[in-house]
Amino acid sequence: MRNLFEIDPWKIIENKFDPNKQKQAESIFSIGNGSFGQRANFEEKYTGPTLQGSYIGGVYYPDKTRVGWWKNGYPEYFAKVLNATNWIGIDISIDGEQLDLNIQQVKYFHRELDMQKGLLKRTFRVVFGSGKELEIESTRFCSMAREEIAAIAYSVTPLNFSGNVKFTPYLDGNVSNHDANYDEFFWHEDSRKLDMQKGILCTRTKKTDFCVATAMRFSFWREQELLTIHPNIAQREFYVENNFEHYLEQGVRFTLKKYVAVTSTINHSEFELSAKAIKRVRDAYTTGFDSLRNEHETAWAEIWKSADIQIEGDVASQQGIRFNIFHLYQTYTGKNAKLNIGPKGFTGEKYGGATYWDTEAYCLPFYLKTADPKVARQLLIYRYHHLDRAIENAEKLGFKDGAALYPMVTMNGEECHNEWEITFEEIHRNGAIAFGIYNYIRHTGDDAYLDTYGLPVLAGIARFWAQRFNWSEAKNAYVMLGVTGPNEYENNVNNNWYTNYIARWCIAYCLEVNAKVKSKLPAQLSAKEIEKFEHIVANVYLPKLEDTHIFLQQDGFMDKEQLNVSQIPVSERPINQHWSWDRILRSIFIKQADVLQGLYLFEDHFSEDVIRDNFNFYEPKTVHESSLSPCVHVILTAKIGLMDKALELYLRTSRLDLDDYNHEADEGLHITSMAGTWMSVVEGLAGVRVTESGLSIHPNIPKPWNTYSFQIRYQNQPLALAISQHKVSITNLGSALISCELSGVNIQIEAGATHEAALK
Amino acid sequence: MRNLFEIDPWKIIENKFDPNKQKQAESIFSIGNGSFGQRANFEEKYTGPTLQGSYIGGVYYPDKTRVGWWKNGYPEYFAKVLNATNWIGIDISIDGEQLDLNIQQVKYFHRELDMQKGLLKRTFRVVFGSGKELEIESTRFCSMAREEIAAIAYSVTPLNFSGNVKFTPYLDGNVSNHDANYDEFFWHEDSRKLDMQKGILCTRTKKTDFCVATAMRFSFWREQELLTIHPNIAQREFYVENNFEHYLEQGVRFTLKKYVAVTSTINHSEFELSAKAIKRVRDAYTTGFDSLRNEHETAWAEIWKSADIQIEGDVASQQGIRFNIFHLYQTYTGKNAKLNIGPKGFTGEKYGGATYWDTEAYCLPFYLKTADPKVARQLLIYRYHHLDRAIENAEKLGFKDGAALYPMVTMNGEECHNEWEITFEEIHRNGAIAFGIYNYIRHTGDDAYLDTYGLPVLAGIARFWAQRFNWSEAKNAYVMLGVTGPNEYENNVNNNWYTNYIARWCIAYCLEVNAKVKSKLPAQLSAKEIEKFEHIVANVYLPKLEDTHIFLQQDGFMDKEQLNVSQIPVSERPINQHWSWDRILRSIFIKQADVLQGLYLFEDHFSEDVIRDNFNFYEPKTVHESSLSPCVHVILTAKIGLMDKALELYLRTSRLDLDDYNHEADEGLHITSMAGTWMSVVEGLAGVRVTESGLSIHPNIPKPWNTYSFQIRYQNQPLALAISQHKVSITNLGSALISCELSGVNIQIEAGATHEAALK
Repeated sequence: MRNLFEIDPWKIIENKFDPNKQKQAESIFSIGNGSFGQRANFEEKYTGPTLQGSYIGGVYYPDKTRVGWWKNGYPEYFAKVLNATNWIGIDISIDGEQLDLNIQQVKYFHRELDMQKGLLKRTFRVVFGSGKELEIESTRFCSMAREEIAAIAYSVTPLNFSGNVKFTPYLDGNVSNHDANYDEFFWHEDSRKLDMQKGILCTRTKKTDFCVATAMRFSFWREQELLTIHPNIAQREFYVENNFEHYLEQGVRFTLKKYVAVTSTINHSEFELSAKAIKRVRDAYTTGFDSLRNEHETAWAEIWKSADIQIEGDVASQQGIRFNIFHLYQTYTGKNAKLNIGPKGFTGEKYGGATYWDTEAYCLPFYLKTADPKVARQLLIYRYHHLDRAIENAEKLGFKDGAALYPMVTMNGEECHNEWEITFEEIHRNGAIAFGIYNYIRHTGDDAYLDTYGLPVLAGIARFWAQRFNWSEAKNAYVMLGVTGPNEYENNVNNNWYTNYIARWCIAYCLEVNAKVKSKLPAQLSAKEIEKFEHIVANVYLPKLEDTHIFLQQDGFMDKEQLNVSQIPVSERPINQHWSWDRILRSIFIKQADVLQGLYLFEDHFSEDVIRDNFNFYEPKTVHESSLSPCVHVILTAKIGLMDKALELYLRTSRLDLDDYNHEADEGLHITSMAGTWMSVVEGLAGVRVTESGLSIHPNIPKPWNTYSFQIRYQNQPLALAISQHKVSITNLGSALISCELSGVNIQIEAGATHEAALK
Repeated sequence: MRNLFEIDPWKIIENKFDPNKQKQAESIFSIGNGSFGQRANFEEKYTGPTLQGSYIGGVYYPDKTRVGWWKNGYPEYFAKVLNATNWIGIDISIDGEQLDLNIQQVKYFHRELDMQKGLLKRTFRVVFGSGKELEIESTRFCSMAREEIAAIAYSVTPLNFSGNVKFTPYLDGNVSNHDANYDEFFWHEDSRKLDMQKGILCTRTKKTDFCVATAMRFSFWREQELLTIHPNIAQREFYVENNFEHYLEQGVRFTLKKYVAVTSTINHSEFELSAKAIKRVRDAYTTGFDSLRNEHETAWAEIWKSADIQIEGDVASQQGIRFNIFHLYQTYTGKNAKLNIGPKGFTGEKYGGATYWDTEAYCLPFYLKTADPKVARQLLIYRYHHLDRAIENAEKLGFKDGAALYPMVTMNGEECHNEWEITFEEIHRNGAIAFGIYNYIRHTGDDAYLDTYGLPVLAGIARFWAQRFNWSEAKNAYVMLGVTGPNEYENNVNNNWYTNYIARWCIAYCLEVNAKVKSKLPAQLSAKEIEKFEHIVANVYLPKLEDTHIFLQQDGFMDKEQLNVSQIPVSERPINQHWSWDRILRSIFIKQADVLQGLYLFEDHFSEDVIRDNFNFYEPKTVHESSLSPCVHVILTAKIGLMDKALELYLRTSRLDLDDYNHEADEGLHITSMAGTWMSVVEGLAGVRVTESGLSIHPNIPKPWNTYSFQIRYQNQPLALAISQHKVSITNLGSALISCELSGVNIQIEAGATHEAALK
């Protein structure tokens, strides 16, 4: 796989402007601050291929469902992540010719995403039709310190002339979603105001009535000297601008600093929304660009202090992991209980919705090991608040008595996906949500959570599973028919091992919690339910290949033509872009971990032999065409000691978007799998586990790396780990003694102390 | 099931205007002549709920495919049956108030479809706002004698006043499809011309460039006296009208006779299209309404002479069978090689496409037994002409070397359906096409057909199956994974018994034909292919329930909850309107004959015990929610002697739309299943079979019937059968001796002779 951009430990760097890479670059160089975000579209006009994208967390539109053939049970709408007011716009023109990298000759181009500081920068030189040459330098960021603020410094230097240049900073709410189902326009304009000092545009989503106020101010500088400008104003529906012409001297740098505030009814009442935006942007203007940037860099430094993974000896690996951590924090900071972690974050509009099973299966473990436990708790409570909707969702499918089916994709708890084989059948997602609760409890010991919040959710989920299993006289066991497992390259199969396994576990865990929780909640199981649940737990059918350790992905799996991925011609990869759907379905090839997902989650239920045999059986059949696939495989690969394979898969997951393995980075990045990448280092290479018996660490290191180091939280205490080719050291950065198991040896580390051991 | 309309042996009668039944009635009272057709929309303006529909055989629009989530292999477009120029329009108004049954008080209403004569008639009385009362009588037909002509006689009698009434006959091409994927308008206007004598509107489909010319003329009568009228003319885009006011005397009947010609580039060059329409309408005008109607009635009488089934003793049964035969002939007369038999005929726009496996599986046997063999041959050659497209279609799905997959839905041979579980997986359709060839040969003995036309199609189909099977090491047999059988309430199943069985049969039959055909066609099988085919035929896996005669519908069928249809609450029927799709899929309930479809087609491969046991196993699980379901069951039921059940199912199939069992008659009728209804009498109750060993008849009769009688063709000779409770009589209406088996006895009947026997 070729590298799309330069390799650097802290930066993503592009040294040549390539219009064919622009949409990929727009995704990869995206910036965000957990509240809102922006693709790396250009500030100035650009008429080449581009996907404009400015997104605000939690603001969505219920786009009327589009299908070819309606199936009963489909939701009425799909919650679309919305392209919102373009706040980056700064048009530049000379003698009526607009700056546009699709028109002018580009003599030099450098773009970088500084992940350490959270800055997107561009420096480039263009030659206008008149021969006039400009150098432009821009820096922008969405402030990590002020969640409603962004700022841009846009500098212009005439290189071979002195003369007038026109600057037009603007806000443009006339934006649409590329993937709107019926080419609808999603916004109303509420109001706009404009004077020479400031502009504000208030828009409102149709149907959902989310209001968004976007305010701007600017200042203009000759080198370090603030100039007084009396701009013109212009406006039309959904659009406000200032504009002014200024005489620029050759070789002198003039800078427009644009300050932007974005407020929405996610955080404010409708009545104070515009006042808040005006106040925020005034404060930002008063603070000034450099101070804002300093605050922002400081906030990032604070994040990196605990979240960074340092890898020495392999810059591509280093860049990859930081790229993942960086985008994850740009998407979700854990500050706002109303938000969740969309699969594309603020980098694209595809898929829609903000909440998938990815949150519990991939992101929660990340936050459990890196952040204050209240972040993980907040993610769980988000689902607790959606329980009623999950029960309604199950009722639509014919379930009853409080059975809950969490949606495949949602914004507000209602299902909004519409493929029957996914919406109705990829129900293992329910298991991930129950497992998330279990995982939270074993990391935090917060048993009190179960009483109020945990049991109702677990009972709803267990009730669903109990109804979804049916008794097979033929097998003398409970079977589950018509499901889609995590491997979405199989649809509507019977007895998917993973789904049956996690469903049984959910029921068993619910019984356990129900017995533990003494309060008389309405969620409490009845005696009859308990009896039924126990019968199911004791009699679930789990397909297995006779005389082996192999768990069969589903009934009939051995009827497939038994091939390995190496037998697929390279020209036919990825198969999801080359093969018809039916061919993919009946082939043996696996999109992402399925049986292996179960072995990963329930690792402590199985011996290493079982894990190894299943890994060796399934991994060669796996095409990893889901972003969620490689990370789980890294973890299992490392566990069974195949470090070369682990490194190969690690690079694939960590550089998935950077190197655009799946040819789809133009549509946005795979945000949720980025948490999986972090896990692939911490749980995979470093072998960190938190189970009911406590913390254990079985570290290993790929050959090309000299050392790698990172921090985790355990029982809310920070630990620093550093692993080199021969040594592992663990430092207790907390205030209490920590006990853990290190490569089979039980150790204790005093507060502030470092434990060192040879790497086994 | 309540009857929607009056019971009558030859007519469908509605005696009360019910706006809530209007859309159903529009379907049921549709008229057509094999070339074009028209829903029973009102001539005058109607602002109540209605589905306007005027359709022309073979004229379609490639409507851009609409899906929620694209799957590789989906076709780019769906061939939509087009709503074309409204030619029935006659607006009536008094003092500016338009006649509109949604507005005025309706004092009397009678509508009838006279199936014997092919006439749609209405008589009704309305009271205008002013208190003026009119009686209207209209009669219209699409001429069975002139395939491009329709005519309407529209009489108005003022009941309680004398005064001016305005008449506006018009043509309106400003029509759209209710189910257009993107609300596109499908037509261009080419030209329009209008004078006092005639109007013509020429329209052209977008993309496909089908041109249609619709021409009208009218005459106006006071009782039997032709009046000279000088109408006004008015036109706008897609619209031409004449209009005139006339003073009508109380109690006197005035009649507007409207003549219409519809020509299209299906039958004419673009250049002569409009001249042909003008000539045709002039001829019709000259001929006059009464003579045209006489010709038309004569043509119908000719059809009924050989196609009628007479049932004495049960008027509902009699009406039902005639309703089916009537609509079948309105849809397809066998005259035009470019046309086929759309599932809704000319009664609705749903589904689109004109050609489904229904043609071979249900309609071909009807034409083989009722029409000149060239009609059946024409239907087969239609598919022969599509062979290259079928090969392309298979290539899109990854098949090669001349493998052919006929489309699920098509107009021109290209697939245009877009549900992966149907488009890519409901591949048993390929088998029906091969079986059609076999069926044609055994009915006609036309072996020469195989040489030029038969073998290439059979080889393409066999090659497809040979690639679609894969070898299962686990089963030590060929399996077929990921298919949808005839029972569409199961998707993506493994080893559907019916599909495996017919696929194996196709390969075997291709081998047989290949050996028989001596010419060296490119389609001839290679030695290597023969070897491979023989290996497959010998080693196909067919699921079976151990120690029984039961063939299993698919792998895993016995894991389902074993229920019968009687256990479904009535309020949940039909389940496809009450249950979510996943629930239907994992339930045991069967939409239409699946294993039983195989037992029907290959009846002579199985003993009566096998058929009975499978029938008793599957029928109670069958909800018959496909129109194609009951007829096959009637045939099997009669075979195993369950005559009460046979009659129940016969009524269901023959009155499916008349009584609107499936609550969908408003969208159009189930035309192709109507051939199945005919079969249910002839093959079912009368036990008529044509196999390789010849003609056999095993007649039976339901208890409530006195007698039933019909004609069939065998070896191109007509035979008349009459069956009463105690006697069967067979009359040889042809010119040669006929040998057949009657209830196990071999008999011979001389030309012109009648053989009588007691009913066993």
